[in-house]
Amino acid sequence: MEDCLFCKIVKGEIPSNKVYEDEDILAFYDINPATPIHILVIPKKHITTHNDIKEEDSKIIGKIHMVINKIAEEKDFKEKGYRIIINCGEDGGQEVKHLHFHILAGKKLGEKIIG
Amino acid sequence: MEDCLFCKIVKGEIPSNKVYEDEDILAFYDINPATPIHILVIPKKHITTHNDIKEEDSKIIGKIHMVINKIAEEKDFKEKGYRIIINCGEDGGQEVKHLHFHILAGKKLGEKIIG
Repeated sequence: MEDCLFCKIVKGEIPSNKVYEDEDILAFYDINPATPIHILVIPKKHITTHNDIKEEDSKIIGKIHMVINKIAEEKDFKEKGYRIIINCGEDGGQEVKHLHFHILAGKKLGEKIIG
Repeated sequence: MEDCLFCKIVKGEIPSNKVYEDEDILAFYDINPATPIHILVIPKKHITTHNDIKEEDSKIIGKIHMVINKIAEEKDFKEKGYRIIINCGEDGGQEVKHLHFHILAGKKLGEKIIG
C-alpha cells in the first residue's frame, strides 16, 4: 500500500527503532509511547484492520504472539507483565490503517481496561 | 486446572452466557462488562498467561483471531469497530489466570489506550 505509514516503515522509507524483524513480522518502538515500554508489532503484509485477517494469514497472526513472548523475554518485562491491545476501526480507536499489536509494559497498568 | 474459574466454565460447572463454541475455543459475555458489548474469548486448553503460549498452541491462537472476526460480524459490531485486549501478569492487570482475549465494543473507545 503506497500511502501506508507502516508499509513505508517495512520498506525502510521511514526510519524506525526496530526491536525484532523476520520475513513476516516487524516490531519497533512507538514514537509516541503511552507507557515506559511501548512496542508495535505488525505483519509486513498490508492487512488494513483486524477485520481483514484472512484464513491464510492466521499462521502469521499466531506467530506474532510467539514474537511478542520472545520480545517480552529479551526486553525483560515477561515476569512483571504487559498488556497487548489491538484497535479495530472507528469505535476501537484505530489510528494507522495497517493491523498492529500494541505491547504496553514498564508500569503497572490499571484494571480499567478501556481508554 | 481444578481451581481455574475459566476451566470450570469450559466444563460447564459454572454457567456462562455463551457466544461461540468449538472444540478448541469458547467465547462468552463478561459478567462485569466494561463496555456495552464485552466478550471474553478463551482457549479451552488451560494456558495460564500469554507467556505460556507454546509453539504448538500458536494455531489455536491464530484461530481465536478468526473467531473474533466471526463474532464481530454476527454481533454486528464489525463495521463500527472494537478493541481487543490481552492482559498478562501483574503489570498487565491480569485477573483470571487462564489466557483470555477481551473484545470491547458498543461504544467509541478513547485513544488513550492504557487503563
